[in-house]
Amino acid sequence: MRQMTLIGFLQAQNCTNFAASWRHPDSRVDYTSPDFYRHIGRVLEEGKFHLGFFDDRLAMPDMLGGNHEHTVEGGIRCVKMDPVTVLMTMGMATERMGLGSTYSTTYYEPFHVARVFATLDLMSKGRAAWNIVTSLNDGEAMNMGTNEVVDHDKRYDRADEFMEVVLGHWNSWEDGAILNDKTNNRFADPKKIHRLDFEGKFFNSRGPFTVPRSEQGHPVLIQAGQSGRGQRFAARWAELVFVAYPNLETGRKEYAAFKQNVADHGRDPEKVKVAVLTHCVTAETRAEAEDKRALIDTLPTDLDQLSLLSEALNFDFASRGRDEPLSDDEIQGMQGIQGIRDRVLEASGKTNPTPNEFMKYSGRGLLHRPWVGSGKDVADIMEEWFSTRACDGFVIAATHVPGAYEDFVKYVVPELQKRGIFHKDYEGATLRDNLGLDYPAPSHWKIPMPNGGH
Amino acid sequence: MRQMTLIGFLQAQNCTNFAASWRHPDSRVDYTSPDFYRHIGRVLEEGKFHLGFFDDRLAMPDMLGGNHEHTVEGGIRCVKMDPVTVLMTMGMATERMGLGSTYSTTYYEPFHVARVFATLDLMSKGRAAWNIVTSLNDGEAMNMGTNEVVDHDKRYDRADEFMEVVLGHWNSWEDGAILNDKTNNRFADPKKIHRLDFEGKFFNSRGPFTVPRSEQGHPVLIQAGQSGRGQRFAARWAELVFVAYPNLETGRKEYAAFKQNVADHGRDPEKVKVAVLTHCVTAETRAEAEDKRALIDTLPTDLDQLSLLSEALNFDFASRGRDEPLSDDEIQGMQGIQGIRDRVLEASGKTNPTPNEFMKYSGRGLLHRPWVGSGKDVADIMEEWFSTRACDGFVIAATHVPGAYEDFVKYVVPELQKRGIFHKDYEGATLRDNLGLDYPAPSHWKIPMPNGGH
Repeated sequence: MRQMTLIGFLQAQNCTNFAASWRHPDSRVDYTSPDFYRHIGRVLEEGKFHLGFFDDRLAMPDMLGGNHEHTVEGGIRCVKMDPVTVLMTMGMATERMGLGSTYSTTYYEPFHVARVFATLDLMSKGRAAWNIVTSLNDGEAMNMGTNEVVDHDKRYDRADEFMEVVLGHWNSWEDGAILNDKTNNRFADPKKIHRLDFEGKFFNSRGPFTVPRSEQGHPVLIQAGQSGRGQRFAARWAELVFVAYPNLETGRKEYAAFKQNVADHGRDPEKVKVAVLTHCVTAETRAEAEDKRALIDTLPTDLDQLSLLSEALNFDFASRGRDEPLSDDEIQGMQGIQGIRDRVLEASGKTNPTPNEFMKYSGRGLLHRPWVGSGKDVADIMEEWFSTRACDGFVIAATHVPGAYEDFVKYVVPELQKRGIFHKDYEGATLRDNLGLDYPAPSHWKIPMPNGGH
Repeated sequence: MRQMTLIGFLQAQNCTNFAASWRHPDSRVDYTSPDFYRHIGRVLEEGKFHLGFFDDRLAMPDMLGGNHEHTVEGGIRCVKMDPVTVLMTMGMATERMGLGSTYSTTYYEPFHVARVFATLDLMSKGRAAWNIVTSLNDGEAMNMGTNEVVDHDKRYDRADEFMEVVLGHWNSWEDGAILNDKTNNRFADPKKIHRLDFEGKFFNSRGPFTVPRSEQGHPVLIQAGQSGRGQRFAARWAELVFVAYPNLETGRKEYAAFKQNVADHGRDPEKVKVAVLTHCVTAETRAEAEDKRALIDTLPTDLDQLSLLSEALNFDFASRGRDEPLSDDEIQGMQGIQGIRDRVLEASGKTNPTPNEFMKYSGRGLLHRPWVGSGKDVADIMEEWFSTRACDGFVIAATHVPGAYEDFVKYVVPELQKRGIFHKDYEGATLRDNLGLDYPAPSHWKIPMPNGGH
């Protein structure tokens, strides 16, 4: 029977991706301590989650009004630590769960990213995953020493080349290369470790790479771009795709279209898992869950919404009155997560939405369409999405931590397991084993393939 | 009574800094597994080491003869994993020992380095240290996308500015900035979190920084440059300095000169610890230690020496006959660890040494002047160096791992403790506490100081 994939959507910061979460009375405030992350890791592993995954951003939100006062005061993603370092606290406290992190293709050399994630993969014994992002906002650019972000589509062209380098390095050690023969002074076989000698339009990287392959070959590749260009990128490279579908019907359509897109790139659609982002609020009974949700709905502020929209679309929403429509130029000129803009245009039916309409239709900063109810209620919804092919699994975001995950593991996971659609235990030792993905053949970067060597 | 500092000199690779170490019969071969590093961490912490410290290099040695075959075959620092990721395995298996890593100022943006180490500092509860290096060889440059290394002195000018940005960010959150006041929606005090707005010759970085300060304020700064320019850099910025002195007499002179250099920069020389790099071979008796050493001396090869010299000086020693003197231009044109070149010139008394002389007088790749004997023998030498002010402590390199550290902790540490010159337990919770360094005042970057704000 087909099994669903579950991912915990984590942040190395003071709140979850629901920025208001830190104001929840049950939120732990020790988010700068390793114990906080170790605890979350143990909860997710108890729930047999396939992956704990950290988001990232290289700046605190200060696009709104051009300064960071509201961010600091309101705790709107104010803290942002290095996600791989934080992920290792969780990795050392767990044995089987996958460990994923975002890392930008915009501000690092591909050799560095290849090395960090290959190391994470070894230190976690084959449990690593990398979420490939192109960085999108001015705050990040200014922290990282450049003055402006590059054009959306060009960022992806650059990212394509970045992937060729990273995968090239990861696949440059053949299996069996290491001999460890002390007596004959043969550490490894030089014929099985290759220099990449990559010279591209955006990057050069020579090699040889300095990190051997892991138990799962190399880290699993994650992508979450929802623009047209982002989806083509995902169809070419990703093995696990995070999406935000507005409803079941649209989800089924977009899922089918994306899988076709994957097939068009010459890849097996079953080997690219699509996971839908969702918040769940669950409890022993539906009434209790609704009470919990009512409390959570009191937490967000308008500033949360406007601040996060400004970041995501790289546009200062304080530059307009709340009911003043944005101009065509402003709408078209938005750089950032274009999926959000497109969804607002579609859902509002407006070509020039106002800030209030962006707030309403994006749901950014709010607890947007959560699945609320008993474990059985939530499992019903998940089963419908999963079994009718709107997704292969779910990225479970938290209204607050660790409570939201403790509830999910207590109430929803056993329901899913009882129905036979979610594994009762990990199938294997590596993340690829547990996701049902193939072991990637080393050196296949040498074979020119239409899908970019993957 | 003055107490010495002990540091374990570690590598995230297949060998120690003694490249032949992997050929030792007692070397563990699971250097790509977390268990290997956790074990070493526990051994060092049992020995009350102040710090476990990882070296780094962004390429495998392939300067010699222009290819990597000999490196791979002979295991000459062939593997090189991301040191911060590996360090976290050790951090999560220890409670009190400091955790240090090299990270280059040449290939990353300072915002990134500041964030990685600030995160490491939080996740280790105030135990982090950063070894500041400027990268020096062509292999690294070619992996990281540039074609040639920059000039030695210019690298340090750039590194100075890099430090201004990193320290600026680290000191931009005032103490008490975080409020965590859920009820009044006051996450932190905007008046206490400052934007850096740095615009320099080499770097721009705006901020605000996204990582709060740790229990020890910010990571301890390490430096190991031994050239004149490197020593000025260390005198300005470092809190812990690693040196390689050829003998006790020279050590005393250079130590005194360096401490004067620190004072000339307006800093307290007692707050900058100087640790001498050394290998020890120790056992229950002197005779057993000498037997151990005899075995170790059989391990290195000529290729180890020539390969490592080529890397360190960015010069292909295979381009000359072993007895053919290098030209003036070649000697002067060497980019890299100029301290090695200078020491060979001095020790050989030659202005144009041959490759064989470089091998002999640098000792690179050999077990060079190890301290060999019973615990008492080794402690005698260490006490003399320490008490006659040739150093404040020692960077203990390993002939093989984990054996060399197990021996040191078993035989030498109790001797040092008995003499009252090495602590019996950790003094405090943070690395600064244990090294006797001051808590750095936040926002002191705002005060223009002749020593660069430190």
